[in-house]
Amino acid sequence: MASSLFKLSSVLVNSSKNLRCVVRLMEKRDFSTTNVTARKERDTMGELDVPDDKLYGAQTVRSIMNFPIGGIEERMPYPVIIAMGILKKAAAKVNIEYGLDKKLADAIMQACDDVISGKLYREGHFPLVIWQTGSGTQSNMNTNEVIANRAIQILGGKLGSKDPVHPNDHVNKSQSSNDTYPTAMHIAVAMELRDRLMPGLVVLRDTLAAKSKEFDKIIKIGRTHLMDAVPLTLGQEFSAYATQLTYGIERVCTTLPRLHYLALGGTAVGTGLNTRIGFAEKCAKEIANLTGIPFESAPNKFEALACHDAMVEVSGALNTIAVSLMKIVNDIRLLASGPRCGLAELLLPENEPGSSIMPGKVNPTQCEALTMIAAQVMGNHVACTVGGSNGHFELNVFKPMMVANVLRSIRLLGDGCQAFNKNCAVGIQANTAQIDKIMKESLMLVTALNPHIGYDKAAQIAKTAHKEGGTLKDTAIKLGILTAEQFDKWVRPEDMLGPK
Amino acid sequence: MASSLFKLSSVLVNSSKNLRCVVRLMEKRDFSTTNVTARKERDTMGELDVPDDKLYGAQTVRSIMNFPIGGIEERMPYPVIIAMGILKKAAAKVNIEYGLDKKLADAIMQACDDVISGKLYREGHFPLVIWQTGSGTQSNMNTNEVIANRAIQILGGKLGSKDPVHPNDHVNKSQSSNDTYPTAMHIAVAMELRDRLMPGLVVLRDTLAAKSKEFDKIIKIGRTHLMDAVPLTLGQEFSAYATQLTYGIERVCTTLPRLHYLALGGTAVGTGLNTRIGFAEKCAKEIANLTGIPFESAPNKFEALACHDAMVEVSGALNTIAVSLMKIVNDIRLLASGPRCGLAELLLPENEPGSSIMPGKVNPTQCEALTMIAAQVMGNHVACTVGGSNGHFELNVFKPMMVANVLRSIRLLGDGCQAFNKNCAVGIQANTAQIDKIMKESLMLVTALNPHIGYDKAAQIAKTAHKEGGTLKDTAIKLGILTAEQFDKWVRPEDMLGPK
Amino acid sequence: MASSLFKLSSVLVNSSKNLRCVVRLMEKRDFSTTNVTARKERDTMGELDVPDDKLYGAQTVRSIMNFPIGGIEERMPYPVIIAMGILKKAAAKVNIEYGLDKKLADAIMQACDDVISGKLYREGHFPLVIWQTGSGTQSNMNTNEVIANRAIQILGGKLGSKDPVHPNDHVNKSQSSNDTYPTAMHIAVAMELRDRLMPGLVVLRDTLAAKSKEFDKIIKIGRTHLMDAVPLTLGQEFSAYATQLTYGIERVCTTLPRLHYLALGGTAVGTGLNTRIGFAEKCAKEIANLTGIPFESAPNKFEALACHDAMVEVSGALNTIAVSLMKIVNDIRLLASGPRCGLAELLLPENEPGSSIMPGKVNPTQCEALTMIAAQVMGNHVACTVGGSNGHFELNVFKPMMVANVLRSIRLLGDGCQAFNKNCAVGIQANTAQIDKIMKESLMLVTALNPHIGYDKAAQIAKTAHKEGGTLKDTAIKLGILTAEQFDKWVRPEDMLGPK
Amino acid sequence: MASSLFKLSSVLVNSSKNLRCVVRLMEKRDFSTTNVTARKERDTMGELDVPDDKLYGAQTVRSIMNFPIGGIEERMPYPVIIAMGILKKAAAKVNIEYGLDKKLADAIMQACDDVISGKLYREGHFPLVIWQTGSGTQSNMNTNEVIANRAIQILGGKLGSKDPVHPNDHVNKSQSSNDTYPTAMHIAVAMELRDRLMPGLVVLRDTLAAKSKEFDKIIKIGRTHLMDAVPLTLGQEFSAYATQLTYGIERVCTTLPRLHYLALGGTAVGTGLNTRIGFAEKCAKEIANLTGIPFESAPNKFEALACHDAMVEVSGALNTIAVSLMKIVNDIRLLASGPRCGLAELLLPENEPGSSIMPGKVNPTQCEALTMIAAQVMGNHVACTVGGSNGHFELNVFKPMMVANVLRSIRLLGDGCQAFNKNCAVGIQANTAQIDKIMKESLMLVTALNPHIGYDKAAQIAKTAHKEGGTLKDTAIKLGILTAEQFDKWVRPEDMLGPK
Repeated sequence: MASSLFKLSSVLVNSSKNLRCVVRLMEKRDFSTTNVTARKERDTMGELDVPDDKLYGAQTVRSIMNFPIGGIEERMPYPVIIAMGILKKAAAKVNIEYGLDKKLADAIMQACDDVISGKLYREGHFPLVIWQTGSGTQSNMNTNEVIANRAIQILGGKLGSKDPVHPNDHVNKSQSSNDTYPTAMHIAVAMELRDRLMPGLVVLRDTLAAKSKEFDKIIKIGRTHLMDAVPLTLGQEFSAYATQLTYGIERVCTTLPRLHYLALGGTAVGTGLNTRIGFAEKCAKEIANLTGIPFESAPNKFEALACHDAMVEVSGALNTIAVSLMKIVNDIRLLASGPRCGLAELLLPENEPGSSIMPGKVNPTQCEALTMIAAQVMGNHVACTVGGSNGHFELNVFKPMMVANVLRSIRLLGDGCQAFNKNCAVGIQANTAQIDKIMKESLMLVTALNPHIGYDKAAQIAKTAHKEGGTLKDTAIKLGILTAEQFDKWVRPEDMLGPK
Repeated sequence: MASSLFKLSSVLVNSSKNLRCVVRLMEKRDFSTTNVTARKERDTMGELDVPDDKLYGAQTVRSIMNFPIGGIEERMPYPVIIAMGILKKAAAKVNIEYGLDKKLADAIMQACDDVISGKLYREGHFPLVIWQTGSGTQSNMNTNEVIANRAIQILGGKLGSKDPVHPNDHVNKSQSSNDTYPTAMHIAVAMELRDRLMPGLVVLRDTLAAKSKEFDKIIKIGRTHLMDAVPLTLGQEFSAYATQLTYGIERVCTTLPRLHYLALGGTAVGTGLNTRIGFAEKCAKEIANLTGIPFESAPNKFEALACHDAMVEVSGALNTIAVSLMKIVNDIRLLASGPRCGLAELLLPENEPGSSIMPGKVNPTQCEALTMIAAQVMGNHVACTVGGSNGHFELNVFKPMMVANVLRSIRLLGDGCQAFNKNCAVGIQANTAQIDKIMKESLMLVTALNPHIGYDKAAQIAKTAHKEGGTLKDTAIKLGILTAEQFDKWVRPEDMLGPK
Repeated sequence: MASSLFKLSSVLVNSSKNLRCVVRLMEKRDFSTTNVTARKERDTMGELDVPDDKLYGAQTVRSIMNFPIGGIEERMPYPVIIAMGILKKAAAKVNIEYGLDKKLADAIMQACDDVISGKLYREGHFPLVIWQTGSGTQSNMNTNEVIANRAIQILGGKLGSKDPVHPNDHVNKSQSSNDTYPTAMHIAVAMELRDRLMPGLVVLRDTLAAKSKEFDKIIKIGRTHLMDAVPLTLGQEFSAYATQLTYGIERVCTTLPRLHYLALGGTAVGTGLNTRIGFAEKCAKEIANLTGIPFESAPNKFEALACHDAMVEVSGALNTIAVSLMKIVNDIRLLASGPRCGLAELLLPENEPGSSIMPGKVNPTQCEALTMIAAQVMGNHVACTVGGSNGHFELNVFKPMMVANVLRSIRLLGDGCQAFNKNCAVGIQANTAQIDKIMKESLMLVTALNPHIGYDKAAQIAKTAHKEGGTLKDTAIKLGILTAEQFDKWVRPEDMLGPK
Repeated sequence: MASSLFKLSSVLVNSSKNLRCVVRLMEKRDFSTTNVTARKERDTMGELDVPDDKLYGAQTVRSIMNFPIGGIEERMPYPVIIAMGILKKAAAKVNIEYGLDKKLADAIMQACDDVISGKLYREGHFPLVIWQTGSGTQSNMNTNEVIANRAIQILGGKLGSKDPVHPNDHVNKSQSSNDTYPTAMHIAVAMELRDRLMPGLVVLRDTLAAKSKEFDKIIKIGRTHLMDAVPLTLGQEFSAYATQLTYGIERVCTTLPRLHYLALGGTAVGTGLNTRIGFAEKCAKEIANLTGIPFESAPNKFEALACHDAMVEVSGALNTIAVSLMKIVNDIRLLASGPRCGLAELLLPENEPGSSIMPGKVNPTQCEALTMIAAQVMGNHVACTVGGSNGHFELNVFKPMMVANVLRSIRLLGDGCQAFNKNCAVGIQANTAQIDKIMKESLMLVTALNPHIGYDKAAQIAKTAHKEGGTLKDTAIKLGILTAEQFDKWVRPEDMLGPK
């Protein structure tokens, strides 16, 4: 069979050239510049054309040429570049103490501000993709080149001249890709956790907690194994959801101590060769000042370069949150199923036309987006795990892939929670009539009769009602076991909601 | 501990407002239009502003508003939109047979060509993200709206008037999101497998097979458990790599029969309600013509809507290929480790400045990009698996997420193989001096002496050599067991390369 | 925080010694022998006590001592040992042609039969666990020792004497752990696929197909996005399930060509050193004869030792089947939810007491076991994937772990399908009254009126019915739009089940 | 292709009946009793034979019959049963306060002690497998039946009579499967973390820390991207490993607050129906006393039944530890590769005969076992994640699968660390001659000359040495740039190990 399949594959590879070329159009990196004049820049391997309107240099161009992998959607994540700007600014400031010319340092810091504001990213000066060298060296050099050229502009120099600001000697002073990139990973993830994930989680948790309170008098059927069980309140049901997210927030917080350790100062292999005593600690403090996050210099720099267990740990917390959200949102869409042929206990806001024919068909589209996100986060976690386990010796070289997955998970969870909260959660309503109706039809309420008429008679009522399709009350009366008054007095779901 | 962590989290959420707003800038979808005039369009929920320079309509705008999740990198993948164009064109052509006005159909087909060419995607008419309704309905409507408006333009009508071409009645005729979107999934994946993955895999396989031939006389030490073992040729070692990729190509091919089944014609729940007999089969045939791929109408449309096992299956094949590439590329970078303190059996092309100080430090950057891709593909596979397992009843609503992961894996593997092939594999050279030197130093060659001098004496030679650090030959002579001539005659690595 | 946590951990580690020792009792391997006399056996590292009632030798004992990891549940899977017996028998037979004494070969083959029958495994002669050397060398030696000693018994020799049958020289003749163990992996998996997975899949597929036929006249509400949609038959719904499993069977079959390649004959590094020309092919043929499976000698032995992509591929097929089963079984338990407050369209067999109080509470326990299995298989697949990607040079050393995961997935899926089939699937009944009732209540049927009264009036009926909670029919009559006769004539779910 | 494959599968299913029956022998649960007399026991579904020598009852037998899935290796994990014994004992003690007859309670508590000691598990009274109802109900009933019968024995009653101790009314008093099983999950995992994982992690961490100290004067080449880099000490390299495990210990500790929450008292749906106020808290306190672990009653019982995010969280910590171990152990075996053709910087203890021919071939078998375990833990984590995400409403029914995966990960990691520590880590030796030799050959040391002779001349030395294969020193002298004295004074690896 193998050989015939193999022939098939050759056919597949060769056929249909026409459509293929259409697809090939995408290969041009979307953000590539066209119709621009070029200047020459050089690195140690020679001279290259660099677009005149771009601040990057030869090493960045070389990476574009060598790694034509994926389109704009594969670009190095924005928060990594912002974090790079932050750490370069901190290093420049600290380097003044260790001999960096203050005028140059000031220009560098000003250039860093244009990175930190996102301006230079948005203008296309950071075109590199995730799929480059696994140390992120090329993105470090991209940053060095852009900052150097921007500082040269500020100081009135000529782009690409490396004078008076040199990308290596000045911007990258006392640094190595091997310690800057992991530092940027930690800064970017910590900031995004705080600024993107936490707001989303907290607002959704608060909404669910508020719903729990709002629904605290609505008694409903409980379901275990998907089958009817004893009652609880809808508020109690929602309290579990709020609790899950509260714990989720705690889970993220437990990862922070190790996330707040920064590699900066370890340089090439963790020894800190070419740095000065105190540099690492001062930089960490400066970065803490710039971000408002209590970063510290990593107590062991060898660990900080050679492995990224801290990324795997954060990713694990995100994975647990994804698990929580999958459960919560699945419940909500199941409870809102219907309107006629489902459980129909909840009513969700209608955000889009469901169907032009069937009013009431509100598709739980926000639930769907969020459960898709949850699945994605679980997958991202595995990618991060595999990358984390594959480091060698003094350097893990799955860095860009790892941080990209963690940042994507954060972004999707944060944005997804916000969208779900605003467009769904806050508008959830209880369909109290339906909730009450089916709860009262449940045979499980017979449990309450045991103390009064004994197990056997209670069972007789329930079995008869199940067989004949009647209600417990009607059946009990018909069987002559109870009066209506007795039933109403003894079978009270509101007495079944807690310990006595 | 929980409560103190919780307080910490509140602090984190509230602190450092300044930097946070910087990050927030990214929230604006990158491709959003600004400074444009707007027209009014309406759907069944009311009227909305639509940018005048865009062909999409109210339902697309509503999705943009309701799902502000992620930036441009989360956009619905290009191949899905191309595939949508293809199927809409096929449906329009077939619908002529079932009563669609030919003039309208021709305009629709012409509009579809602008989708298929990628022009309308590149111009920003398909702004929706993956994270929308799980059926892909909104992207189906985006397509319907764009094609209808483009056809209206062609026919001289007014944008947004739905006259003379209506997005639902004409463009979506006999279709439902529930069958068009999964059809687009299969078309997109099949095309990308053929046009993006296969060329990459085949070219790399061919290079590795050529290297296997080129290296077929180079005898080297074998390594098992990472420890020195008996010799083989470098060509034999590379033959394993080529074989892995040959099998990988077969693995992709085995998935095609089920991938080539199209859901189109199933409409809302798989019954084909609102279609005509023959519509499904004719559309499949037309799509096969347009793409050159042997698509067929799915024999069971219920399966085709309700689950996407075919995506999971393809993803599984990609996962196996990722496993193969991880092994191959890890081997290559380990064999090229050095130059002085590693194995140094291979020399890789130098693509970027390694270090300005140390000549010969060629970092295996292409290997790093490809192993990162392999890890990503393994993660994507889990996301796809989780999504595939979570369908309910007549519809799986993890569709955009699933296809996005499969397409991303294909793109990264295809591009990654091409880049690795061109920038690394074709330039791999054997460091024959080193290979020969360490192979000859290996103590394992003593095996060849067993038939001549018996196990005990052979062991004595090997043990002595190991203890004293000498060569086998010198040791054998020194121990008086063999002459140099005997040693050279009997210990011949070239005789240890196959069965006798 | 880190340091205080660290103190906590120290406390945890040291506290509660009493209960800990209880748990420690499990550390004794459950199958360890006690109160038996011992004989001395030796390997190249010295002499060891071996229990007199056991056929294994010194190398097995050494592995027991060095790898006290897990209890009996971690033992090398039974099918691996059976497969080892098969390949040793085949090799012995072929070795006669290459000079192995026929008397010894006959005794070896007879001993192999006791391995193949499972007798020696059940009697505890194969005590080693999965967590040993990653090449499976120790289990290969365990097999060699047991077969040699059993053959010695047959020939009247002394246990442990290695005379007249030597574990290495005779039983392992022309073999290496590096080719025998992967050969056993392929044999074991191929046999288990055929004998354990396929029967389970086929019987369940057949039941679901029969149910599809049985239910082909039962019209029910369709559900998309979990919301009410247009109708289909319950038979159509089940046809998707049967189709999923039919495709699942195909998916397994597509992996077989590469699974049927055997590594035997590759010896230590794939070159086949120490074998004779023809040995590999003859052994493969003999194994095919013994098993009835069309095994072939692997065309590339280097691939066959250095990587186990074939295991990852099979695992991928199992993963897809797990995805299918998760969907099918989730649907079934959701459709059977109730009895009063769920969907209640299906009735499942009652296998255990649900509750002594509530008759009709049939928990879908078989569904639960099978979905748990599905989740396990997805996890096993990741373990297999990670192992497969981590081979080095001439040998992948994750062999026992990989095959153990694949075999466990097969066993669980096969057994799980059988149990689910027998105890649930065959007994599934349609709750026709409920199915009919809720289907007729659905507002979605209004779709059928569009051609007769126009969209606007149809929408008016549906919206009013939704708002007031009435039926379509009553509402239509009340609004004076239709007569009862017209409604009954035009709104016919049985006309909505296919294309026209 | 599909149809021909399908035929193939039929053939496969039907062929080779003989061997298949061999495999079928395993279907008999290994621990099944034979040749024993039986007593009758009944549950609400009728009467069943129960082996006379077993303490379980009808519901356990029914589960054995209904779930013939897997062999003895699939048995409910031992720590779960121990934990069940602990919680039943605690509940019995607390129930005295709420009216349970003290004599009965004392007998129950004594019976519980036989569960807690492991005696009853080892004697086969807990035969059920993981693959049962997803709530663990059957294992809860198994426990109730065994404890009741054991208590009956103690009180001189008749087995199976349920008199004077009833499994439901007395042993299960104020409990439900839905709260007892998750309570047992938390108890079992917390105990195993403390008693099995922590000792393994701590001892290995301590060894690695000791090695770091032992090796703190050994200067070696650093490697980034697998390529030669600047030097560090072997002690620094090992310090990263020790740090990884220290963080791993912290990671486990961070999960404990949520793991220490117990569901007991929630009964069927989390409301605590049928319990008395205070029961939950008193039981938690009692369990804390019995175990020495600070368990608390879960603040939200709905969360505690409906989802097991705490299991996913713990599993995530184990996953991160697996990642750490994979890195550490891969490094160690790569550093020990050789002896002649690898890096050969480390010497590992020789635990088994490597090869009878090649002395010095020490296969890193302990490394292999531990990396296989790491891969398994990553897979277990995915299984746990998938199960955790699939709960519905008031109950997650993937409980046995989830806890089994977490417990297996703990056991394998704990045992694996112990075995690796004892049989490998403590015996690791530095091959100082080789380390020193290759470090000094490295061209990277030229870095140190930059301040003295300038970059250009330093580069000239390095490039010439690389091209000609010479040492830096010889080349520098030959080029006339330096004297030997200058070289020795300036190129000092010991000055490159930290910041200045």
